[in-house]
Amino acid sequence: MSGPAVHPVEAPPMTEAALLRVRMKDVQGMAGTTGGLSLRLCQFAFAAVSLCVMATTSDFPSVTAFRYLVAAVSLQCLWSLSLALADTYALLVKRSFRNAGFVGLFAVGDGVTSTLTFAAACASAGITVLIGNDLDKCNLNHCTRFMSATAMAFLSWFAVSPSFLLNFWSLASRDSGH
Amino acid sequence: MSGPAVHPVEAPPMTEAALLRVRMKDVQGMAGTTGGLSLRLCQFAFAAVSLCVMATTSDFPSVTAFRYLVAAVSLQCLWSLSLALADTYALLVKRSFRNAGFVGLFAVGDGVTSTLTFAAACASAGITVLIGNDLDKCNLNHCTRFMSATAMAFLSWFAVSPSFLLNFWSLASRDSGH
Repeated sequence: MSGPAVHPVEAPPMTEAALLRVRMKDVQGMAGTTGGLSLRLCQFAFAAVSLCVMATTSDFPSVTAFRYLVAAVSLQCLWSLSLALADTYALLVKRSFRNAGFVGLFAVGDGVTSTLTFAAACASAGITVLIGNDLDKCNLNHCTRFMSATAMAFLSWFAVSPSFLLNFWSLASRDSGH
Repeated sequence: MSGPAVHPVEAPPMTEAALLRVRMKDVQGMAGTTGGLSLRLCQFAFAAVSLCVMATTSDFPSVTAFRYLVAAVSLQCLWSLSLALADTYALLVKRSFRNAGFVGLFAVGDGVTSTLTFAAACASAGITVLIGNDLDKCNLNHCTRFMSATAMAFLSWFAVSPSFLLNFWSLASRDSGH
């Protein structure tokens, strides 16, 4: 036996920094992981399909909620696409955007865009159900298109929610380490 | 000077348990604080007003979204009232519901009820705007009542969001301490 047996050295105390490092393990779905990238691509794809379906319907501008849906899913498209690009970059250079500033920005952005998309989807769903079930005027309107656009917006919101919750969670567990 | 000066005692190392205790300080708005109780009472009051205004409108059952609003704000009323009672109890006996099980239950319940209330409010808002602005048929409908009920549902959602975010935050920062 060498050194340590002669001059016993205590195990270094578990420092706050070490604790933090243990906590910040890669959870799939966070920014900078392949799971996160695929979530972003799903969000983008659903929002883009919703946008195309709604925007190519001839009479959408006559209903405020449908105009708002187009605006909200456009914003969602832009946000998800830019974060997908950021994730791709992070994966390529094998670094992650895991400082509190970026995670906070992502959490706030996800919170805002997902709330807007969800609000737009709910408003459109309310009107589609009103036209289809309550007034029974689907023969005069593009019910199927409205329904598809609404469903796609809901799916896009479903894909944003995990991103938001994970970012918020990682922000909270980071902050508690200070 | 007594004991400590003669036999100097090292300060005990900051243990994980001590770190946890420091983190779990009372943030106003969490379950078991006066802030939390007042948030719950706001949620309950807004949801109850929304329920009364919508349920006393004669033609609400003809629109699916309005029926859904009545159901969602009823659920919100029940949830907020029961948590207000729990908070009152916690304040009276000077204990708090701060174990992971309760906080998790509160976070999930707040998340579900706030999503339902928000969805109902958005759907009603879409239809109210459709009737009022796009079709211009407010003379035939109770636009003002629909609008008030919708606005109250939104306010109730605004009051639930901080509860949800605080519970989720405290759940995340607790969990990272394990």
